[in-house]
Amino acid sequence: MTGQRRIYLDHAATSWPKHDTVLKAMDEFARDCGATAGRGAYQSSMAANQILAKTRVAIAKLIGAESTNCISFHSGGTAALNAAIHGLLRPGDHVVTTAAEHNSVLRPLHFLAKRDAIRLTIVPVDDSGIVDALGVVEAVEDDTRMVAVTAASNVTGAVQPISAIGKALKDRSALFLCDAAQVFGAAPINVVDSHIDVLASPGHKASGGPSGTGLLYVNERLHDEIEPSIQGGTGSMSESLDMPTSFPEKLEAGNLHVSGIAGWLTSLERLKLDRTEEHCRELSRKLHDGLRAIAGTHVFGKPGPIPIASVQIDGLSASDVAMILDSEFGIEVRSGLHCAALIHRCIGTADEGTVRISAGAETTTADIDAVIEAVTQIASSIR
Amino acid sequence: MTGQRRIYLDHAATSWPKHDTVLKAMDEFARDCGATAGRGAYQSSMAANQILAKTRVAIAKLIGAESTNCISFHSGGTAALNAAIHGLLRPGDHVVTTAAEHNSVLRPLHFLAKRDAIRLTIVPVDDSGIVDALGVVEAVEDDTRMVAVTAASNVTGAVQPISAIGKALKDRSALFLCDAAQVFGAAPINVVDSHIDVLASPGHKASGGPSGTGLLYVNERLHDEIEPSIQGGTGSMSESLDMPTSFPEKLEAGNLHVSGIAGWLTSLERLKLDRTEEHCRELSRKLHDGLRAIAGTHVFGKPGPIPIASVQIDGLSASDVAMILDSEFGIEVRSGLHCAALIHRCIGTADEGTVRISAGAETTTADIDAVIEAVTQIASSIR
Repeated sequence: MTGQRRIYLDHAATSWPKHDTVLKAMDEFARDCGATAGRGAYQSSMAANQILAKTRVAIAKLIGAESTNCISFHSGGTAALNAAIHGLLRPGDHVVTTAAEHNSVLRPLHFLAKRDAIRLTIVPVDDSGIVDALGVVEAVEDDTRMVAVTAASNVTGAVQPISAIGKALKDRSALFLCDAAQVFGAAPINVVDSHIDVLASPGHKASGGPSGTGLLYVNERLHDEIEPSIQGGTGSMSESLDMPTSFPEKLEAGNLHVSGIAGWLTSLERLKLDRTEEHCRELSRKLHDGLRAIAGTHVFGKPGPIPIASVQIDGLSASDVAMILDSEFGIEVRSGLHCAALIHRCIGTADEGTVRISAGAETTTADIDAVIEAVTQIASSIR
Repeated sequence: MTGQRRIYLDHAATSWPKHDTVLKAMDEFARDCGATAGRGAYQSSMAANQILAKTRVAIAKLIGAESTNCISFHSGGTAALNAAIHGLLRPGDHVVTTAAEHNSVLRPLHFLAKRDAIRLTIVPVDDSGIVDALGVVEAVEDDTRMVAVTAASNVTGAVQPISAIGKALKDRSALFLCDAAQVFGAAPINVVDSHIDVLASPGHKASGGPSGTGLLYVNERLHDEIEPSIQGGTGSMSESLDMPTSFPEKLEAGNLHVSGIAGWLTSLERLKLDRTEEHCRELSRKLHDGLRAIAGTHVFGKPGPIPIASVQIDGLSASDVAMILDSEFGIEVRSGLHCAALIHRCIGTADEGTVRISAGAETTTADIDAVIEAVTQIASSIR
């Protein structure tokens, strides 16, 4: 890395910098405790258990879960989504999802569909990346087992009509899975209000936790039905070759990354959702408005609570723009398809993807000014 | 935790303390870089890629892998074993394993067997926890797809005849999976010399890495055959709904825990296997000899390179012993079945499990003296 100040605008991938308290809590846990959770009766091991319990409380409170037992820890959003998708779907099931999904939803569903294990309907999105709630609900059939919708696109930041879909589904047999990767810790999301049965998120994005953390919320009524897709030691019922049937152990085989969860706990305790959402809405507005005003620059999506803008610049490949932003301006953004295979066909960027500029709670308006100025210079350089 | 000095003897669960360089490398990566790997073209993201590359080199060198492409990162040993077991086994396969396995091997195999997806043969072990190589090989049938054997028991430390089994299998069609959780970083293990096709280990045990890290080695000849059991974004081939077919991305869906891997790299670079093994053999000898000399104390297993001793004390439950060791002596050990469902039936401890005392490279002979003295006092208190 150069000595230049970094302007980090890849928050949709992971948040950075992590707050000092997060890193200190991780380091302190690893130094002063370091024990595994759920497996020993000694005090350090109990201290590890306490961290897990407190973090489950913080998460349950944040999303309105009916019980901390509904919250299991996973190594990230992808692992959590896979635990839900592979754990809940059965041969013959029909699944409805959207073109706005990340590959962490699309690929496991496609994996099953390709093997004829499920039937998959993918509902397209409009040119901002937004799915029509009615379109999703109309795709639901009598044998639809799951409706999987992301809370917000990681490409355009488009917020999906989660509550409308949840309400429309609440008297249907299909369960509602929400990928909250871009929203958890950035804006309110409530599993009761939105009738969400299953919600997954990494810990390292807007909620400010470290890498290697993730959560899955599973509604109590599904606790018997969901199968553990990873099996192993749980520190409980060890005499049995079967996974425990109790939650959350049923989904938590293997030692958890407790030092990471200790860090995550402090970032969850620091969250001020109201303030963050307001700040991010302002960043988003400023970012979209500023980029739209640049000649030769095309912005995909609309401003909203998730401060992401995807752009293309006439005459410049997305990867060239990203590289110049980094090398000339110290601005870190991502180019390409952003692990979302299908949305680009809907928003018209399937050829080479976009330059994605994604801000976070720690981003300043000066950072947004800087990236707008830099894109202006880059766009004019080719004309 | 009390102010008393901790004598940590639960190394079979996780190593502690982590070396200062490990924690510093984690913290520095998170502070100074913090980017995701494999997904961005900016310099910080490249720096993350470089850490992964260097760590793959260190691991490949340590186990004698033919290529760094054979090494994939996972969130722990359990995740790695599940990726191998669910990724390689197909309906109708026969699998041979042993009673010495951890539940991270037994439970996924049992999960498949219970659903009639595979047939499972479990070879018993002797009263030290050692499996007979010939017994394993004789259990192999024409349709045996996998032989899964732990390199060393996490209950008794018994080292299994991995090389003998590997050599006997090398001209058979069955593939050889080795759970190296207790051995990786503690004693040499070489996939070529021992004809191991698949090897899994967490990073946080003897090799001294942080929690949330793990590895899977998969021999190149299996790269086409293994299916990814977790699917999601890989930062590559993002336009495709299929996982990439190239290694190691095929098995690495989702963001990796790069800060943890950065820490792990420094502990791998510090490993001095010869010295560690010699030291641990001495600790093991001292521990077993000392415990065997205590009246009313029964020791399971034999001394060896993995310094674990499982004990029972007449008249005291294992959990009471562990609790007294912690509260009265500041000695942290684990009681119970240690997530190994079957070995206790073979060594005669199925009633309530054992008190497991497990040392590591950082353990001193004074620590061993302390635990022997403490067990002596506890054993005599009941007589």
